[in-house]
Amino acid sequence: MWTGIIDAYRAYLPVTDATPVVSLREGNTPLIEAPRLADKIAPGVRLYLKVEGAHPTGSFKDRGMTLAISKAKEAGATTVICASTGNTSASAAAYAAAGGMQAYVLIPEGNIALGKLAQAMAYGATVLQVRGNFDAALTLVRQLTERYPVTLVNSINPYRLEGQKTAAFEICDQLGRAPDYHCLPVGNAGNISAYWQGFGEYHKLGKCTAPKMMGFQAAGAAPMVHGAPVLSPETIATAIRIGNPANWGLAQTAVDESKGGIYAVSDDEIAKAYRMVATLTGVFCEPASAAGVAGVRQLSENGVLKRGDCVVCTLTGNGLKDADFAIRTAAKPVTVPAQLEAVLSVLKF
Amino acid sequence: MWTGIIDAYRAYLPVTDATPVVSLREGNTPLIEAPRLADKIAPGVRLYLKVEGAHPTGSFKDRGMTLAISKAKEAGATTVICASTGNTSASAAAYAAAGGMQAYVLIPEGNIALGKLAQAMAYGATVLQVRGNFDAALTLVRQLTERYPVTLVNSINPYRLEGQKTAAFEICDQLGRAPDYHCLPVGNAGNISAYWQGFGEYHKLGKCTAPKMMGFQAAGAAPMVHGAPVLSPETIATAIRIGNPANWGLAQTAVDESKGGIYAVSDDEIAKAYRMVATLTGVFCEPASAAGVAGVRQLSENGVLKRGDCVVCTLTGNGLKDADFAIRTAAKPVTVPAQLEAVLSVLKF
Repeated sequence: MWTGIIDAYRAYLPVTDATPVVSLREGNTPLIEAPRLADKIAPGVRLYLKVEGAHPTGSFKDRGMTLAISKAKEAGATTVICASTGNTSASAAAYAAAGGMQAYVLIPEGNIALGKLAQAMAYGATVLQVRGNFDAALTLVRQLTERYPVTLVNSINPYRLEGQKTAAFEICDQLGRAPDYHCLPVGNAGNISAYWQGFGEYHKLGKCTAPKMMGFQAAGAAPMVHGAPVLSPETIATAIRIGNPANWGLAQTAVDESKGGIYAVSDDEIAKAYRMVATLTGVFCEPASAAGVAGVRQLSENGVLKRGDCVVCTLTGNGLKDADFAIRTAAKPVTVPAQLEAVLSVLKF
Repeated sequence: MWTGIIDAYRAYLPVTDATPVVSLREGNTPLIEAPRLADKIAPGVRLYLKVEGAHPTGSFKDRGMTLAISKAKEAGATTVICASTGNTSASAAAYAAAGGMQAYVLIPEGNIALGKLAQAMAYGATVLQVRGNFDAALTLVRQLTERYPVTLVNSINPYRLEGQKTAAFEICDQLGRAPDYHCLPVGNAGNISAYWQGFGEYHKLGKCTAPKMMGFQAAGAAPMVHGAPVLSPETIATAIRIGNPANWGLAQTAVDESKGGIYAVSDDEIAKAYRMVATLTGVFCEPASAAGVAGVRQLSENGVLKRGDCVVCTLTGNGLKDADFAIRTAAKPVTVPAQLEAVLSVLKF
């Protein structure tokens, strides 16, 4: 039985026998070959999807959170805190609950869909809305963790990226090799940095080659493509709507060292990719997750990808996190009388 | 790498080498020990949660659907159909997409929250609303499948229960034994029947003992407790709001043969259990899923469960399926000025 990424990759993580492992059985997510999707967007490419939405709280954040919370517990913390309106708060609240700790979540006031906070609220986190923007919330979180016995679990907590790197290990273990190209969405840029660290560690041990790291930002939130922060980032892919990535430097190193790149994909391309993933593979991902898939199409059309190339796309989150987007973008139900002929007029056999 | 329940339990399933396996890597869901939850609801009991919401589409339905869709594909079907407003339609649509088939979903008109259909719509199913109730929709589905080359994948499809029985195998394999008691929600009564079949098959092979099967219906939708169908079933646990279970006979046999029982739990008890599971274990389940946990508490308070008993509770679905319920029932966020003192007045350190 799989018992989580700390048990599975203990030798690669900063834990000892004294570390109390707080796990919800994160990791070991499916790696699914997607030949019909490849036929449509990158013919001849061997395309695999790493389904990170299969995690306990529905996103890749659980990989880092199991480590951050376990280490917090080891250090004696009883409370953890983060500023987040989305996947981080869900993961922090879940692992805090699993570890018998209290989670505090600070969010900026206004325009926050409660749906994004449903998980954190369900797991029993205390959610505090502060009259200010996200930066004001994060500043308060930093001040609190400097002065009081509460552990910060935003991605500036170094254990977060350490845990996230295990996704790279898993891909190599599942595939028996590293891909030629690894494609993924880039928001705060922590994940691409963590993957590169993971591939690098396996590479040093002779366990895999080094893939080219290909990151994709939404066109309206593409600071790394433009080479400058974006003041008012805008995109349907809310999970990567970030104008000034915290891990910009690390991500740039990943791209430079791997001879990869950071590119922009439009919201329209993201929405199309999102729909194609669901209808051609049966995997329902978050809009932001589809940025990497839109990227594969772009790389194929630009002639970067060649026939026979092995490409892995990370789908970072579960589509159920943003069910409204699915409803808004899918075909609406048709209503007919409860008669066989009426039904047959719509369904073609 | 886990490749799904058909590969894992091939010897126990009606498949051959000629069966094309359509899988999204269902099965192998976490079995998590929950000592802090047990302390609160059933002190002294060894309590485990089987987290079926970890499935690709977020519910246990995926176990049966992989088999139903694979067998449909083997028989040459290119379209499948079901009448469902919830988890069945999501699962059918996902596996149809994975298998390159078209899914049709018939739903009754009126009062259907589109949120429940977000997944089916995202996966590209054609959703048809018929002017009539659920029975009218199911009747049309039956008529269509009798006359046209389209495969019915509602639970009257026998492959559905065959696939679902693998959950019992997994529990025995993960635990190294069968539990003394197996507790789970009962709606259409297919799942309890499938589990009993699974435990029975393993028992015959000497691989486990036979647990007592304990089913729990919502008090407002408890036909098997009353011994008569309920005309207008009502409960917050929508996934088990069923007044006349399709698998009543099979479920009664499961309970009789295992010396178990079917009991009622109130909506209030379900809501309390739902909250306790999330806050004490970090597992976010559907309201209906918590019926079995509410049942454990009842069995403990009634003296049925003894210290040292081993109990497994199946949590049938993912809480993200009904995020609105979480928001309605959780504490609301508190708003404060963006000042340290204001934050500290709410968060106690």
